[in-house]
Amino acid sequence: MEKTTVLYAGKAKQMFNTDDPDVLWVEYKDQATALNGKKKVQIAGKGELNRKISSLLFAELNAAGLPTHYLKTLDATTMLVKKCTMIPLEAVVRNFASGSFERKFQVAHLRPLVPAVHEFFYKSDALDDPFINDEQAIALGYADQATIQAIHTLSDQVNAYLKERFAQLGIDLVDFKLEFGRLSDGTLVLADELSPDNMRLVDQESGNSLDKDVFRKDQGPLTPVYAQVLERLQSVVSR
Amino acid sequence: MEKTTVLYAGKAKQMFNTDDPDVLWVEYKDQATALNGKKKVQIAGKGELNRKISSLLFAELNAAGLPTHYLKTLDATTMLVKKCTMIPLEAVVRNFASGSFERKFQVAHLRPLVPAVHEFFYKSDALDDPFINDEQAIALGYADQATIQAIHTLSDQVNAYLKERFAQLGIDLVDFKLEFGRLSDGTLVLADELSPDNMRLVDQESGNSLDKDVFRKDQGPLTPVYAQVLERLQSVVSR
Repeated sequence: MEKTTVLYAGKAKQMFNTDDPDVLWVEYKDQATALNGKKKVQIAGKGELNRKISSLLFAELNAAGLPTHYLKTLDATTMLVKKCTMIPLEAVVRNFASGSFERKFQVAHLRPLVPAVHEFFYKSDALDDPFINDEQAIALGYADQATIQAIHTLSDQVNAYLKERFAQLGIDLVDFKLEFGRLSDGTLVLADELSPDNMRLVDQESGNSLDKDVFRKDQGPLTPVYAQVLERLQSVVSR
Repeated sequence: MEKTTVLYAGKAKQMFNTDDPDVLWVEYKDQATALNGKKKVQIAGKGELNRKISSLLFAELNAAGLPTHYLKTLDATTMLVKKCTMIPLEAVVRNFASGSFERKFQVAHLRPLVPAVHEFFYKSDALDDPFINDEQAIALGYADQATIQAIHTLSDQVNAYLKERFAQLGIDLVDFKLEFGRLSDGTLVLADELSPDNMRLVDQESGNSLDKDVFRKDQGPLTPVYAQVLERLQSVVSR
């Protein structure tokens, strides 16, 4: 397997085509950004930690029958994934109020949200990733009704799995962002990454953040926190 | 029937309690506002026109089996309505792209939206009436799942009625805002008002706005336009 042309150069990952048309090569980078890219630094080891956490969680989801794009790990910062046609929506699932939700509705930090709230954001740099509802997404052709429904269902299943997995480690899964794509045969799969870069995790005992909020809020070095999440995941084998 | 205490003093209407606990007294005002109240003027005759258009459309919807809060007209600017417990959501229905939707998604003016797009905004001056999706509204307790579904259904029925009614007059119903409440027996009814203050109407022949956009965009005097809408509605009896 060889990487060929660059498909996508993002803030935290770089994706390449390979000599297999159905396979992409993903390199996790050490760069950390916040505030829509206004805050940007290099953090040695971050790419490796995110790759490891993502590999572990994607592999578990695949084994649990929840399809992801993950194929296998190549080295410390590189994985191979199935090529998909991405759906241009970010799907956010919230179990507790935090971040933009907490600010927008002026509700108590970590107020439980039952049932979990789903939100979509349309992926568009030009439009600044606007918050969008299901009917807007359908009318604008970003996804059809069946795809929206399938994303809701798969998001709920992933949420149920991850919430339980982290609860066993004494961690609350506050919220997370998912992206989805379709394989050439039409199968909807979870794509992008699954790491503390795109989920909020709170230690149930200390109340400390175990995610990128540490970086966003300048609460100290990021890598020991991400390393702790990885260690806890490795310390308890998924059921 | 006597009006008693002021229940609500708004920008375009004032509502009073009456000696009947199930009935409210609504006075339509001549005030016009735009840009969240930053632009505000008195326009003689506007209150009467909006009361007349609202009375006419509410009465038609009642007759068509689509329940509204409307009871009867008292005088030029006053109607009696059934008292309801208001649901704190503004429901917007869009048949064509315009206004905030057009700006947010940078789509062509009056691009048809099929199926019609529903949006909710949470009525809160403190939060500046934020755009909200169904699941947020449910999780925050603003409305339950059944109420959200009932609002969608009734909004669709009102849209179907009004779209057809205006089409017969050579007018496109671009979008409109509805508010809903529950009577003491739990019945969901359409409330607030139904006038060119809260709907966008476009003349199919000239392409001219026949609604508050005339005021928002300084396109000339407002009352002749509203009067024309009323005349056209009166000229063709609803089927």
